[in-house]
Amino acid sequence: MKTILKNATLLSECGFEGRPVQVTVENKRIQSITEGAVEEKGAEVIDCGGNLLIPAFYNAHCHAAMTLFRGYGEDLPLHRWLNEKIFPAEELLTARSVHVATKWAIAEMLRRGIASFSDMYMFEDSVAEAVLETGIKANLARSLVSFDPNLDPATDSRLAEAIALADRYHLANDGALKVDFSLHAEYTNLPHYCEYVGRYAKEHGLLMQLHLSETEEEHLACIERHGKTPSAFFADLGVFDTPTSAAHCVWLSDEDIAILAEKGVTAVHNPVSNLKLGSGVMKLRKLLDAGVNVALGTDGVASNNRLDVLREMQTAAILHKGISRDPACLVANELLPLATENGAKAQGRLDCGKIMIGARADLTLIDRFAIHNLPTYDDHAMLAYSAESADVRLTMVDGRILYRNGEYTSIDEERLRFESREVFAHYFE
Amino acid sequence: MKTILKNATLLSECGFEGRPVQVTVENKRIQSITEGAVEEKGAEVIDCGGNLLIPAFYNAHCHAAMTLFRGYGEDLPLHRWLNEKIFPAEELLTARSVHVATKWAIAEMLRRGIASFSDMYMFEDSVAEAVLETGIKANLARSLVSFDPNLDPATDSRLAEAIALADRYHLANDGALKVDFSLHAEYTNLPHYCEYVGRYAKEHGLLMQLHLSETEEEHLACIERHGKTPSAFFADLGVFDTPTSAAHCVWLSDEDIAILAEKGVTAVHNPVSNLKLGSGVMKLRKLLDAGVNVALGTDGVASNNRLDVLREMQTAAILHKGISRDPACLVANELLPLATENGAKAQGRLDCGKIMIGARADLTLIDRFAIHNLPTYDDHAMLAYSAESADVRLTMVDGRILYRNGEYTSIDEERLRFESREVFAHYFE
Repeated sequence: MKTILKNATLLSECGFEGRPVQVTVENKRIQSITEGAVEEKGAEVIDCGGNLLIPAFYNAHCHAAMTLFRGYGEDLPLHRWLNEKIFPAEELLTARSVHVATKWAIAEMLRRGIASFSDMYMFEDSVAEAVLETGIKANLARSLVSFDPNLDPATDSRLAEAIALADRYHLANDGALKVDFSLHAEYTNLPHYCEYVGRYAKEHGLLMQLHLSETEEEHLACIERHGKTPSAFFADLGVFDTPTSAAHCVWLSDEDIAILAEKGVTAVHNPVSNLKLGSGVMKLRKLLDAGVNVALGTDGVASNNRLDVLREMQTAAILHKGISRDPACLVANELLPLATENGAKAQGRLDCGKIMIGARADLTLIDRFAIHNLPTYDDHAMLAYSAESADVRLTMVDGRILYRNGEYTSIDEERLRFESREVFAHYFE
Repeated sequence: MKTILKNATLLSECGFEGRPVQVTVENKRIQSITEGAVEEKGAEVIDCGGNLLIPAFYNAHCHAAMTLFRGYGEDLPLHRWLNEKIFPAEELLTARSVHVATKWAIAEMLRRGIASFSDMYMFEDSVAEAVLETGIKANLARSLVSFDPNLDPATDSRLAEAIALADRYHLANDGALKVDFSLHAEYTNLPHYCEYVGRYAKEHGLLMQLHLSETEEEHLACIERHGKTPSAFFADLGVFDTPTSAAHCVWLSDEDIAILAEKGVTAVHNPVSNLKLGSGVMKLRKLLDAGVNVALGTDGVASNNRLDVLREMQTAAILHKGISRDPACLVANELLPLATENGAKAQGRLDCGKIMIGARADLTLIDRFAIHNLPTYDDHAMLAYSAESADVRLTMVDGRILYRNGEYTSIDEERLRFESREVFAHYFE
């Protein structure tokens, strides 16, 4: 199956300086990019109408099934929100509700031009099935915790679940679905368990996802407990010897930033969730200057309340200028890589996240002619400051169009709405 | 002309607890709200399909014609941005370009559910004509500056222009168009001029718009220059004795906040612009606690880059939680009044900004069933955290539908696109 995206505008770094191009996609990959005409026979031809074709967004940290809890228990202090609302609600989760809620999340992400997400949650088999049914990409991880010093990792049922998940789904759908490991966080785990899981992941070539220094309390408690920061804790236990994505990274010290840079750990910035939960503001400029790979994530919907990577990018764009009181502290064209190729890198997908010949075709088409996007002097500025995810006209994942002009190709929206209504109602009505 | 908005959901404070209602609008005002059936004969009937009907948004601070400069000169330090980009570009403005660029801004605002805006700029006659043609509401002000100590306000041509604007347009279109006065800011004006203009406005019953303590530099320079803050400067000159909207208010001291509260000055919060320009973060919680009327504004598009009051509200919602590190510091249902009735109050429109019988019918319909808005446990949380302005289905101003489902009733979008293309190209291509 060959698809031609004709009359597309690419960003300036692609070298066509605003002149319309034809992008040909075949066997999941970008086969050619040309200003000239291409043979259309036998191909599906999409006229992009001069709109902006960009690499699709990557959501490098989320808990997809938390769509169930959108708007539930708002505006509470963090511990009350978790203990009185979220944890009790999560006790009621089932494989079925996680499956439906994840499909709901995927439907939202595809509309917003997101081609892939990293997930840390439970019932990940249900998540995996939703991913395979819809054709989106994902790195899925069963979240691991350990509180009992006598717990033998070799006999831990959660770890067994994580291993079974990897055995069953890792590299399914031609690698679109990957299974990662996940140590939930330092404050929910014991050293011997972290060491074991880190070693296991490394030996099996699996990536690691974890939460790192999200709140000041958590960061300081770790220093109190272990005499070192969470970053040093994980580094010393060898966890960072497997490629790791660390969500939040709000309270990192300069030494922590150096550790992440040295170990090649991705810091996943979740600005909306960090603001909404009152956690604080990541030192984005410092991390970038230190050479850390920074990607963007939405976190769960319960603390956001959207799965919208473009919004995360735009929030980052203005937030760090405002906090540093320097409007030049971030430049528009620095932002898109955070939302695209850096996320792909975090997921170990080195052939994704860029528009170039040979790359996997994860593409998003943005309406450049919406009233709020004109005039346009610079497409990077349009993406950073004026566009919105409702401007997404098409989302392609591995060469397959999954969303176009309000319609899904792999999701029966009416059925999903019917099933979701039932599931949502079961929880809170 | 009678319009019935049937099957609408109202916010909980309206007393119907989610049950669908019929809202009847006649003679520009809300005539009835009922759960029962209403006589539809001779009326225009709109089925709201259970969607959320809210008061329309008020944009309490903007420079509408700056749509011309969207995306122009991004990511520069403030003084370079102004001196190298914006001021030279503004030198090229004409009555025609301001007229077209303002209509473009109005088209964007109507799509986003905005019924009224406060404007401070030049060529305000052209702005006024655009307002009258489109039927939107606005409070327009010719921005006044004074640098020459020998300037006699009585013979100042800019002030003469402002007075002529008021004579010609104040209370046009049955009060939908109002003319305010505007002292641009403390740092662009001299005391004797401010005193004169303030007195003139008070004597003629006109409101005042100004910029106040937007940057720390400006705030400190005023203290250096006059031995007092900008708030004390204007208060002491009697300017605040006329009802005033003060944009930005980022650097107010506690004493300044007390002055605003005592004088009934509206503080217009422009969180996106303040972040993007690196100006800092207004102390919103303190202002609210002091009883100051706080409204929301977008500022000009050049520093935003959208005219999107809902986005300002949502940015405020998360920003102040994040900065204070207290997720309970603002509660979802505190936010909508900033975007609606407080803006109406700032414009001296006391019969606007609320859904109640007898109020002017400025209404916006929000899609409650978008995937990203479900599930919904609380409509205020939906507005504060998940909805987006692309969810606006209808915008009504003074009982007249100006926008519905992508179509304008008072703007010829194709003609506007044609005219704008010409104007945009003239400036920067």
